[in-house]
Amino acid sequence: MIEIIKWANDNLLFSMDILGTFAFACSGALAGISKRFDPVGVVVLAFVTAIGGGTLRDILIGNFPVLWLKNDTAIIVISIAALVSMLGGKWLQKIPYILFIFDAIGLGLFTTYGIELGLDRGLSIEICIALGTITACFGGVIRDVLLNTVPLIFHKEIYVMACVAGGVFYFALDFMGVHLFWTRVLSMLLIIFIRIIVVRYHLSLPKFYLKSKRN
Amino acid sequence: MIEIIKWANDNLLFSMDILGTFAFACSGALAGISKRFDPVGVVVLAFVTAIGGGTLRDILIGNFPVLWLKNDTAIIVISIAALVSMLGGKWLQKIPYILFIFDAIGLGLFTTYGIELGLDRGLSIEICIALGTITACFGGVIRDVLLNTVPLIFHKEIYVMACVAGGVFYFALDFMGVHLFWTRVLSMLLIIFIRIIVVRYHLSLPKFYLKSKRN
Amino acid sequence: MIEIIKWANDNLLFSMDILGTFAFACSGALAGISKRFDPVGVVVLAFVTAIGGGTLRDILIGNFPVLWLKNDTAIIVISIAALVSMLGGKWLQKIPYILFIFDAIGLGLFTTYGIELGLDRGLSIEICIALGTITACFGGVIRDVLLNTVPLIFHKEIYVMACVAGGVFYFALDFMGVHLFWTRVLSMLLIIFIRIIVVRYHLSLPKFYLKSKRN
Repeated sequence: MIEIIKWANDNLLFSMDILGTFAFACSGALAGISKRFDPVGVVVLAFVTAIGGGTLRDILIGNFPVLWLKNDTAIIVISIAALVSMLGGKWLQKIPYILFIFDAIGLGLFTTYGIELGLDRGLSIEICIALGTITACFGGVIRDVLLNTVPLIFHKEIYVMACVAGGVFYFALDFMGVHLFWTRVLSMLLIIFIRIIVVRYHLSLPKFYLKSKRN
Repeated sequence: MIEIIKWANDNLLFSMDILGTFAFACSGALAGISKRFDPVGVVVLAFVTAIGGGTLRDILIGNFPVLWLKNDTAIIVISIAALVSMLGGKWLQKIPYILFIFDAIGLGLFTTYGIELGLDRGLSIEICIALGTITACFGGVIRDVLLNTVPLIFHKEIYVMACVAGGVFYFALDFMGVHLFWTRVLSMLLIIFIRIIVVRYHLSLPKFYLKSKRN
Repeated sequence: MIEIIKWANDNLLFSMDILGTFAFACSGALAGISKRFDPVGVVVLAFVTAIGGGTLRDILIGNFPVLWLKNDTAIIVISIAALVSMLGGKWLQKIPYILFIFDAIGLGLFTTYGIELGLDRGLSIEICIALGTITACFGGVIRDVLLNTVPLIFHKEIYVMACVAGGVFYFALDFMGVHLFWTRVLSMLLIIFIRIIVVRYHLSLPKFYLKSKRN
């Protein structure tokens, strides 16, 4: 049983990491396409959106070389995401919900991952939650700065709030002695759930796709 | 006597650090409020304004994890500053001079602190002054980039010039063999003095408060 | 013979580094002047444009303190470039081709340098090319973010493409067993050549000078 949970844990994390990176990269690439950037601009935006948060987290805690330099998985996933967005952008905009689900998964996964890296370094609970939130949200901030707009998270607080709520929940479960695997999964599910519920009942579509259409 | 100076030095630095962080955080929070950001945006702006400069300095010299990750003082002071700004923003704008004095204190303290961290690493005088200036001014630069405006320091050079003058004065005093305590205090006072004199005789109010009212 | 190549290699690199830094600093300073920034803003822009890319590269691979902190060469060259731009900006705009050649040299040199630092750390080929491109292009991105405009490289892809092409060529030569000296020189020449050819046949002048005149 423990073996199975371990296997699920490792492979689940890995698959979700790829899905999340893919979704974040697509959100950056689509933002660049909607502003009619050249292919190079689109690729650069896909990169900074997908790896910006994790890179800042690695820099702040002193984890060098930063994670995406150490293997080629991220660079390959992001390149494919940029290519898919450029060739199939219109097709992608017809299935925004799938990308949106990926994006919510990325949000949940990146937050949890940031929290655990902070714990590894012996940092305090508040700081760990801040690190998780930075990991999940900062790529989008850099994307918006490069697009020369005020970052989305300043107007759509749910991004940050979902991460903070997930972080608090993580430590509550941990405090209650819940197994690490379930602590991870349940915190991620809470973040994904908050993100989806809010979009479902208040906005009907995540704002960055609406924006794309307006431009 | 040496004991007293030591005590004053430690506690003075600590109190001024808190006052400076508080003032910088308020300047970020008030800028966010004046642009009608959501509470999360206001809190994020308070954070980056207060810790941005010190974080960049720590990154450049390789001081990891960066300082604010190591204890919760900064995170608590900044959260209180953001809360006070949100609840009492109107009240704060009636006493701009108090915040302005805090801000000048922060400018002086952060410059001196950056210089000394550079000295600890054996860096050259010019580089130390550059580090002190970055510590004091860069939080405001990040704040302005996130607000999607051209950084204030590009138009209001006195911020940078006061820090550089204070840094040169620091090394002049040091060269003349003045005691570290007085070198620190006098350099800080010079920076605070330049900042206040300029505002008093040329601008009458620091620009970021004027801006708040115009918006 | 090997002695001569070694001497040429070292001194060539050093001279080109200074020329490249000088040109990048001028491009930042002139951009600030054309927006009527104060002298401090001009100096800050000259700095971030010239050292921004190398600083980000050093941070990503964990090379601390970052290179420009370790000696005063960069700080002196950049200060002179800022001064020359402020005093002789009009004169400089009459010889844009000289600055443009320096800029192309900087592009070639910084790319090669970034690649080799990545190789030193045992990073993969794709990552090394990414590091070289970041070294050469990111200073301009920070300059444009601070100027509150969408980064030039998003609209003028040749900057990035020239660096990537040079990087691929570097590894092709390396794979064929070409001597390090010639690998370096030929990759740099390719980048410089691509940059010049494109400007010569499509744009007639690099865009950042045209922009200066329009403002």
